[in-house]
Amino acid sequence: MEERPLILISNDDGVFAKGLIELVEVMKLFGDSPHSGMSHAITVERPIRINKLQEEEGLSIYSCSGTPVDCVKLACSKILSKLPDFVISGINHGANTSISVLYSGTMGAAIEGCIHGIPSIGFSLDDYTQEADFTKAKKVVARIFQKVAEFGLPDGICLNVNIPKGEVKGINFSRQTRGKWMEEFEQRTDPHGREYYWMTGYFNDAENEARDTDTFALLNGFVSVVPVTTDLTAYTAFHFMQKWKF
Amino acid sequence: MEERPLILISNDDGVFAKGLIELVEVMKLFGDSPHSGMSHAITVERPIRINKLQEEEGLSIYSCSGTPVDCVKLACSKILSKLPDFVISGINHGANTSISVLYSGTMGAAIEGCIHGIPSIGFSLDDYTQEADFTKAKKVVARIFQKVAEFGLPDGICLNVNIPKGEVKGINFSRQTRGKWMEEFEQRTDPHGREYYWMTGYFNDAENEARDTDTFALLNGFVSVVPVTTDLTAYTAFHFMQKWKF
Repeated sequence: MEERPLILISNDDGVFAKGLIELVEVMKLFGDSPHSGMSHAITVERPIRINKLQEEEGLSIYSCSGTPVDCVKLACSKILSKLPDFVISGINHGANTSISVLYSGTMGAAIEGCIHGIPSIGFSLDDYTQEADFTKAKKVVARIFQKVAEFGLPDGICLNVNIPKGEVKGINFSRQTRGKWMEEFEQRTDPHGREYYWMTGYFNDAENEARDTDTFALLNGFVSVVPVTTDLTAYTAFHFMQKWKF
Repeated sequence: MEERPLILISNDDGVFAKGLIELVEVMKLFGDSPHSGMSHAITVERPIRINKLQEEEGLSIYSCSGTPVDCVKLACSKILSKLPDFVISGINHGANTSISVLYSGTMGAAIEGCIHGIPSIGFSLDDYTQEADFTKAKKVVARIFQKVAEFGLPDGICLNVNIPKGEVKGINFSRQTRGKWMEEFEQRTDPHGREYYWMTGYFNDAENEARDTDTFALLNGFVSVVPVTTDLTAYTAFHFMQKWKF
């Protein structure tokens, strides 16, 4: 690539999250004008606000009141002078393996970039703490980004990358683990006597034995790289439905 | 099925939406105790509140402050005495074809049911108006539900059903159209002089010629039935990534 690429960086932990700042730092090595549009998910039925927080050579930082997906849409449509060459999301504080890809704002931003035809990657570190150490994660980000910059990604496919907390033993191509979050709602009563619930829960891995999954990779100290499709059609099901005569 | 099944009904247009009321009416024909947990999407970082609005023989209605996905989780975990036999979501006011499956709260609820191992269907009518006529749509709901009740659905697969506005010519098994929403953010200034944006846009169909897609079916007066997978792994991409040597 002759010119330095335009890189849109987003996350869903907010503009001051350490994981985002570390991601900006590593992406500065590759891109000439990384931008950040980021926020936690909020309702999409309200108007969206953006604020320019910082402007310097090769880096403009915005906050956005919308969801991570809103941020990518707004950045591509209103803020950037051209479509970005890459959308890089994260580094999320906490893993987004298995079915979490469907709930994740980090992956929401990456998938939105992918829908727009832009090579896109979501990065997550398996450490929920605010003080998480991103030193090793940044090296992983650089290595994987270089491959995407060199080879591109197939149309309609982005990457869900999860990075282990401690030592990194290697990088594995993985599939999404079959599993689900088991909810345990904690019931409380507010000062006015009204009940409310906090959602808590734990992940239930439906295939503990499988060795080609993203949760297996992460648990065993490997980075998991899952190619993610935006086409949710279950092509294998058409055969099943053949017997339905309408 | 000997006993009448327990059916969880949800939507993302709110508890008073006509599409929901019509869906409850048609599902009463099949289920003994349909429940409704429903709301528009809001942030998931706040506590969730539920309100029982109505309780009668075979029908309990709740409103829920959370997202449609929250509603399904909360209903399955806290409200229902056992897991429902089916999760039926809708009838959405407006189509959810193509990439809209990823943004849709209606499909969010159905996909959440599917993740919990429950046969689940999301229904949408291609009519955004509040006064939409659901007469024909209800017949479609009944016909498709009967097939799912009779044959079940493969594990990890739910249905995204879109119903045309006018005459129904038939029911087509379709795949998700490749396409995207093109955003056009309308910029306004609030009374305090601060800028804000409303998201608007139009759907860009990337494959106008294809005849096996959900948008083609709907445009031509057919109901589209897309089997939807919860496994987003792009299996075809593993071959592409083989050349990446880490």
